[in-house]
Amino acid sequence: MEGQLKIERREVLKEKPDFSRLGFGQYFTDHMLIIDYKEGKGWHDARIVPYAPITLDPAAMVFHYGQTVFEGLKAFKTTDNRVLLFRPEKNFARLNRSNDRLTIPQIDEEQVLEALKALISLEKDWIPTEPGTSLYIRPFIIATEPCLGVRASHEYKLMVILSPVGAYYAEGLEPVHINVESKYVRAVRGGTGAAKTAGNYASSIKAQVEAKESGYSQVLWLDGIEQRYIEEVGSMNVFFKIDGQVLTPELNGSILDGVTRDSIITLLKEWGIPVVERKLSIEELHEAYQNGTFEEAFGTGTAAVISPIGELNWLNHKMIINDGKIGELSQKLYDTITGIQTGKLADPFHWVVEVN
Amino acid sequence: MEGQLKIERREVLKEKPDFSRLGFGQYFTDHMLIIDYKEGKGWHDARIVPYAPITLDPAAMVFHYGQTVFEGLKAFKTTDNRVLLFRPEKNFARLNRSNDRLTIPQIDEEQVLEALKALISLEKDWIPTEPGTSLYIRPFIIATEPCLGVRASHEYKLMVILSPVGAYYAEGLEPVHINVESKYVRAVRGGTGAAKTAGNYASSIKAQVEAKESGYSQVLWLDGIEQRYIEEVGSMNVFFKIDGQVLTPELNGSILDGVTRDSIITLLKEWGIPVVERKLSIEELHEAYQNGTFEEAFGTGTAAVISPIGELNWLNHKMIINDGKIGELSQKLYDTITGIQTGKLADPFHWVVEVN
Repeated sequence: MEGQLKIERREVLKEKPDFSRLGFGQYFTDHMLIIDYKEGKGWHDARIVPYAPITLDPAAMVFHYGQTVFEGLKAFKTTDNRVLLFRPEKNFARLNRSNDRLTIPQIDEEQVLEALKALISLEKDWIPTEPGTSLYIRPFIIATEPCLGVRASHEYKLMVILSPVGAYYAEGLEPVHINVESKYVRAVRGGTGAAKTAGNYASSIKAQVEAKESGYSQVLWLDGIEQRYIEEVGSMNVFFKIDGQVLTPELNGSILDGVTRDSIITLLKEWGIPVVERKLSIEELHEAYQNGTFEEAFGTGTAAVISPIGELNWLNHKMIINDGKIGELSQKLYDTITGIQTGKLADPFHWVVEVN
Repeated sequence: MEGQLKIERREVLKEKPDFSRLGFGQYFTDHMLIIDYKEGKGWHDARIVPYAPITLDPAAMVFHYGQTVFEGLKAFKTTDNRVLLFRPEKNFARLNRSNDRLTIPQIDEEQVLEALKALISLEKDWIPTEPGTSLYIRPFIIATEPCLGVRASHEYKLMVILSPVGAYYAEGLEPVHINVESKYVRAVRGGTGAAKTAGNYASSIKAQVEAKESGYSQVLWLDGIEQRYIEEVGSMNVFFKIDGQVLTPELNGSILDGVTRDSIITLLKEWGIPVVERKLSIEELHEAYQNGTFEEAFGTGTAAVISPIGELNWLNHKMIINDGKIGELSQKLYDTITGIQTGKLADPFHWVVEVN
């Protein structure tokens, strides 16, 4: 990336929202980061500018052929006013893996992380401190070249926007009711399921709408080939505790390699709790439920951290998990990860990165 | 859709490009159509305005979760200066089917078609008349609400932009060399393959890039489940003439219901040529090639109309089709459809719609 980061400050700062009623992704801070790409010139003109609408040609390729990737991570403020990021290098490494799948040029991960830190530093008054809140960070890249031919764009825009957020799900840590999706499919090997790209989310919305109409918060996705093996829940990775062992679908090319997923596996190993990544069928879950060994279930992701599952509905087989209450392990994982993220607990794995 | 169509004309018209060197989707006309949607208000404020960049919040949902659909159709000018559209009602019906899959609100197909006709009428000097050229019409809808929660947007923008185009493929009717894709997958049943939505195209670009690196123009997609049954070629439907019979993959929920595909099936039936829509494996094609009954192969779509396939490469089995030349039936279909589209041939099926 050529050149220095330029910073153009907003003259009049926005009024901040009520930090006790933030919701998710509805408010945005005063500034944003933009870096442009042009074939032959590479990534250039990194700049922090006032948060404002962007102007694009109606033929910009992102509108037509969806060449776009994104990331999601969070900044936290400690009680002694330090600003912490949680494993941000993993997000930028994944952004580049997504870029590869979507044929978007690779970014310089370290330089973008440095520019992000400058942005966060400028916006540190936007980091809420109430329990469960944080400053959500959304880096994304869009194809901006105006052309209707189906091919990789020659121009892109990388942007980072920031949003102070409350709990991702209105329910918070209340266990959610999930429908096992038997009609729609999120992804299949050979597709884009392992990339964080818009199309995966676009295709999921209809299943989500139909689940809500039936009284469920979200869907549990099965694999695209046999519609039998568990993949993700909503837009999260998913874990099950069965007979003392924690199981999660293996990274098979169609599910996301989640940062929270990886952190949970690391913690469980540290705690001596057996954790296995493997293929896991819905029949196996149902069998465990029937023989009374299905102990806990939870989704994991940056937005929600841990989202306990209180009920799974599979073709009218209802499975009520842990009496519909949050499990002991789910709670311990949530407390540990949010504790490390907010600086309240020690950080034995060197996961947090301080913004100066 | 409430209200009348408003028209704001450009004061100074653009200089038109050289109509003999148009390429595809690189030049845009003087005006565009915009219709807005807001939950509770419906589609509103239909307007023709000067073609210009649009302004969107960086959090607009289309950038993050890809809720977007599009169409492609063409306008032609006859030798006696009439302006013709080809089966436009099918495009707007399909746009609504895509809307349904992407949970975008339904449009009033007739009203949007009327507004499109007003736009075309205003831009009729942009319709090129050289053989193989036309005015390409790109209707598309994008989710514009600024929000990072994964759900259906409450705000959308429908736009129609126009681009004078030459042949879609630089090769024109020269038969293309196609690689049978055995790694990447375009779509799977339960996904969005039958919808015209950005994510399908985004996921295809990497396969296209790798095919080009190996000396092929495009890929032939196999099904997402067994990676064995033929689906599409590039972004087109595909037909094969084997032993006097024309075969094309059946509409299975993961391939596009093409307007050109439908027109070809209709023509073949009219001509008394047997045409069958069914599952068709790559092994079956290869067997036909080996026993000498594989006569022709071609892709079909609005952009290229007919794109003859001269070579198919399947795991290093090279199939040279019709000595690498365009087949007699492929040429006749191309001549007939483009003849009807441009008013040079009679229109027995009432496919063309005149713009007054």
